[in-house]
Amino acid sequence: MNELIKDFPILDQKVNDEQLVYLDNAATTQKPRAVVDAVTNYYYHDNANVHRGVHTLAERATAQFEDVRKKVAHFINAPSEQEIIYTKGTTESLNWVAASYGRTFVKPGDEIVISYMEHHSNLVPWQILAKKNGAVLKYIDLLPDGQLDMDSVKKQITDKTAIVSLAHASNVLGVVNPVAKIAKIAHKHGAIMVVDGAQSTPYMRIDVQDLGIDFFAFSGHKLMAPTGIGILWGKSELLEQMPPLEFGGEMIDWVQLQETTFKKAPWKFEGGTQNIAGVVGLGAAIDYLESIGMDKIENYEKSLIANILPELVKIDGLEIYGPLDPSKRTGIISFNLKGLHPHDVATALDMEGIAVRAGHHCAQPLMEYLDVTATARASFYLYNTVEDGQRLVEAIKATKEFFKNGIV
Amino acid sequence: MNELIKDFPILDQKVNDEQLVYLDNAATTQKPRAVVDAVTNYYYHDNANVHRGVHTLAERATAQFEDVRKKVAHFINAPSEQEIIYTKGTTESLNWVAASYGRTFVKPGDEIVISYMEHHSNLVPWQILAKKNGAVLKYIDLLPDGQLDMDSVKKQITDKTAIVSLAHASNVLGVVNPVAKIAKIAHKHGAIMVVDGAQSTPYMRIDVQDLGIDFFAFSGHKLMAPTGIGILWGKSELLEQMPPLEFGGEMIDWVQLQETTFKKAPWKFEGGTQNIAGVVGLGAAIDYLESIGMDKIENYEKSLIANILPELVKIDGLEIYGPLDPSKRTGIISFNLKGLHPHDVATALDMEGIAVRAGHHCAQPLMEYLDVTATARASFYLYNTVEDGQRLVEAIKATKEFFKNGIV
Repeated sequence: MNELIKDFPILDQKVNDEQLVYLDNAATTQKPRAVVDAVTNYYYHDNANVHRGVHTLAERATAQFEDVRKKVAHFINAPSEQEIIYTKGTTESLNWVAASYGRTFVKPGDEIVISYMEHHSNLVPWQILAKKNGAVLKYIDLLPDGQLDMDSVKKQITDKTAIVSLAHASNVLGVVNPVAKIAKIAHKHGAIMVVDGAQSTPYMRIDVQDLGIDFFAFSGHKLMAPTGIGILWGKSELLEQMPPLEFGGEMIDWVQLQETTFKKAPWKFEGGTQNIAGVVGLGAAIDYLESIGMDKIENYEKSLIANILPELVKIDGLEIYGPLDPSKRTGIISFNLKGLHPHDVATALDMEGIAVRAGHHCAQPLMEYLDVTATARASFYLYNTVEDGQRLVEAIKATKEFFKNGIV
Repeated sequence: MNELIKDFPILDQKVNDEQLVYLDNAATTQKPRAVVDAVTNYYYHDNANVHRGVHTLAERATAQFEDVRKKVAHFINAPSEQEIIYTKGTTESLNWVAASYGRTFVKPGDEIVISYMEHHSNLVPWQILAKKNGAVLKYIDLLPDGQLDMDSVKKQITDKTAIVSLAHASNVLGVVNPVAKIAKIAHKHGAIMVVDGAQSTPYMRIDVQDLGIDFFAFSGHKLMAPTGIGILWGKSELLEQMPPLEFGGEMIDWVQLQETTFKKAPWKFEGGTQNIAGVVGLGAAIDYLESIGMDKIENYEKSLIANILPELVKIDGLEIYGPLDPSKRTGIISFNLKGLHPHDVATALDMEGIAVRAGHHCAQPLMEYLDVTATARASFYLYNTVEDGQRLVEAIKATKEFFKNGIV
């Protein structure tokens, strides 16, 4: 039993007459009372539009909005809160790097290097950029166990490379990629290093300076913050050279009839009223995570996986994707039951109250690479327990028996 | 006394030892319990990522997310919910029209027509588009009372015009513009008509078919919904021709290594995890507004303004911007006290517990047109009362005396 469960009212419910086991955390995480209370408290005491207001509520809202920027900077060890840009989420963050930095600096013939395990949000923006600017999009190969092939890394990144953009952790395979090592290779060749932190930030301590990278993107909703808020971190010298993409209130310095000058980063990127309550909730989520400790969270999830993975491996006909060594994984396990479509598996598990995802997980090129159309995916988070893992193992076994016996 | 006040906990507080009077509604509105409860309820019972999930929570979340799309379509009388695109807010909605429709269809030499009263979010995106595509940005003049000059409308819109984009209601002058009439003129010349509904949608019944326009944008947070959610409505035949701008999960049909095909509108525009809880909250806000009735809301605000405006007009040295006929106004009154900077006025009012905004209101070209650097702005909403208006009138009088007597 996990003492954190009491902080998450949603987990205290039955689904199909069974106690809910929520194992779809790689899609989105549940919110503790502390986060929902922070949002409610903001709306019931301080809600106002930020910046230009001189009245008391506006000053309180602005202080909270900008304090969270400092909190986020501290959370990922960014050198300055002025490098923290509020976005809708990882997808928007990565799109902005491609559309602003990319379209400004990528030249015809330049190469952009990603990998076969990328989520569509770290793949399609680069495809579009490559077409727009006449660049070439190249893919890093994977080893049979799903880790990045470092020989392929060294082969694909060359002096022609302008941008390397990689998932810090895969949303399908659960592997954590050695982005610090790859950033050094990228920099040696004069390329910048972009990291999609959607799946790593909820799970492990992030230090963007230690990683030695240039851009880092993550989503609030995947680490217990509200939906609709995310972060783009970028080195200030890069952000200053990038044009804004959304034009409107608060991001301008001076507007004349035919000419406009913009504020400095990060504000030049934040046109219009931002998701202020989402920012406040993100601050509360970071406080919650920090109160537990990111190292403790990582260790706890590793221990869950170490407990469950050997049980799953024993199930005949269950194929598991990604490395079988728990130390090389986040809390994600993707799998298929031989002869069954993963949607049927997920539906069967849902009948047992167990929520897992099934599909291509927004990673169709990876599915093709793995030679599957889809997988089921169980993803654990800090409120999950060893018992949740056991429920999953038993339910997979029951699903296998159920379909084998041809009852449906 | 307004019976709705009890639904808004934030209003039950003292600011600087005085009962709060919140008159900054044009910047953002307060949230009723029904909206905050809907968000909390979503997080505590149904929170999951939408679409691809087959488990129970994901199905519940998806149903709510798509039901609100229908609710929004009904709210503005859009022909189909597939014309309703979720965005961050009005600013993003207008930017997407400029960046997607605009960059695709505006040709060198084309003209884009806006007015001197536009908010920066309906001005800077068109400036950028004009520069990018070699088009010309033209401005419609205002009459001395702040209404659009219809002679100037007829002069500026010509066969060269590709896009006309106007505020439905001004965020400074409080005037409501005759966009239906202007849409007819625009269409006669082959131009499309874009309407910035940020200030009109909270205040009056919107019927996009009746207005005869092509695009309509508004923000949730200005009509009691959460921050970080807005709407872009567009005619489906236009949306289908427009390229998406943010690439990632959920907006694609099929992703291959070098090529991607996209879903149909509205989903092709919604890359990545959306502000799902914000959408749920928007649905609750629309329910709340509809339960009162938009016509009743408009009439109530008109009655407030009709009560307060004559009192303000009597104050010597108080300049009011926009028409003095209350029937031509929303709930916004911008003003200046002769010889005082509006920031000082707003600060003095805040000392009396009255929250108003002061500044250029993201409308610098309008400030220049009015030959002021800034104004103070009181903006009323449905929870405000005649007494709030009286408090404002008395506080303005006191401020005037205070500064006249040179106490500071």
